[in-house]
Amino acid sequence: MTMSASCGNRFDRRRSETRRALVRAARTILAESGDTSASIRDIAERADVGFGSFYNHFTCKPELFDAAVADALEEYAQVIDGRLHGLEDPAERLAGAVRLSARMAGAHPEIVSILCHSGLGRIYAGRGLLAARARRDVEQGMASGRFTVVDPVVALVALNGSLLALLELWFTQPEVDNGRASDSMAEMLLHLLGLSTDEARDVARRPLPAAA
Amino acid sequence: MTMSASCGNRFDRRRSETRRALVRAARTILAESGDTSASIRDIAERADVGFGSFYNHFTCKPELFDAAVADALEEYAQVIDGRLHGLEDPAERLAGAVRLSARMAGAHPEIVSILCHSGLGRIYAGRGLLAARARRDVEQGMASGRFTVVDPVVALVALNGSLLALLELWFTQPEVDNGRASDSMAEMLLHLLGLSTDEARDVARRPLPAAA
Repeated sequence: MTMSASCGNRFDRRRSETRRALVRAARTILAESGDTSASIRDIAERADVGFGSFYNHFTCKPELFDAAVADALEEYAQVIDGRLHGLEDPAERLAGAVRLSARMAGAHPEIVSILCHSGLGRIYAGRGLLAARARRDVEQGMASGRFTVVDPVVALVALNGSLLALLELWFTQPEVDNGRASDSMAEMLLHLLGLSTDEARDVARRPLPAAA
Repeated sequence: MTMSASCGNRFDRRRSETRRALVRAARTILAESGDTSASIRDIAERADVGFGSFYNHFTCKPELFDAAVADALEEYAQVIDGRLHGLEDPAERLAGAVRLSARMAGAHPEIVSILCHSGLGRIYAGRGLLAARARRDVEQGMASGRFTVVDPVVALVALNGSLLALLELWFTQPEVDNGRASDSMAEMLLHLLGLSTDEARDVARRPLPAAA
């Protein structure tokens, strides 16, 4: 390795550490209060990075908060994905994602708080909680005839909105039995996607894959 | 009328005018930016009322913003209710509410902006966009056997979340054909509530009642 390559690597590493520190600070703010009125200077201070370095990574504050929500979503989705790995049936995968999302809420309060505090604007902007993975499942289910929905885009909107509203319900009313509520939600959403009442009930009650 | 009764009335009237002015100012803030970080002093100034009078009506700022969202929701719901007045079938009423909510979005940008900006926290806190009216429709439909849902509370969460997500989709992507998307959403939600594919399609395509 040449000297300059080594320097380059060190520079890149520090650069990406700065970005991560800013994103982490923004995630903390979203989780604590959802109040994004802090100044860029305050956020940089909280992240323990120089004020000027903010602009090496983001053009404005909303861009940082978008990145923070995307980061939290990706982390959440990866955990769920890991659990569902190996399921062939798109109906079972979608139901599993809904059921696990709600069950994981207790163990990942920071992420749920981010999702609820950040509001819809940052959630639906092209990504959504289920986003790419759910789109793939809906398309695969429609191609195989498992799902028969009127409009796949609108179906995804319904899936995302319903799941987010369920997390919000649990967030504001922790006494709700979240496992049971999410099983019911999964069953009804499978029905929305075109499964018969019996099929929907069967798929939504299957044992969930255990954590790896 | 006695002198004191007249004074009392005038006092009550002025008091309720002050409250209305504060709620109106909060609605404007939510519609413009959704940024609720303005101070109570700023909001009172904007409402053109004395700073101290704020505390005659609200104990804190979030309480005012909750009242502002409730006010916008009630206004929106009343317009929709007026249009649906006279429909007997709870399925047609619910479908109509979804279809009209989305269609009215263009004519009521302030209300839609409030709903989207205010985030889920204030929407689902016991009220929701469809709230009391939708609860009544779901219960009536279940009692008559028109709806067969697993859990009426979770069904309402799905209805609310889906409708809000649809409004958000249109708000962020105005090029979406909102009428068509909301017809599809209504059809899929009726399916979620237990109507057969054919029934759901039929009810969700009926002509909407004209404005009074």
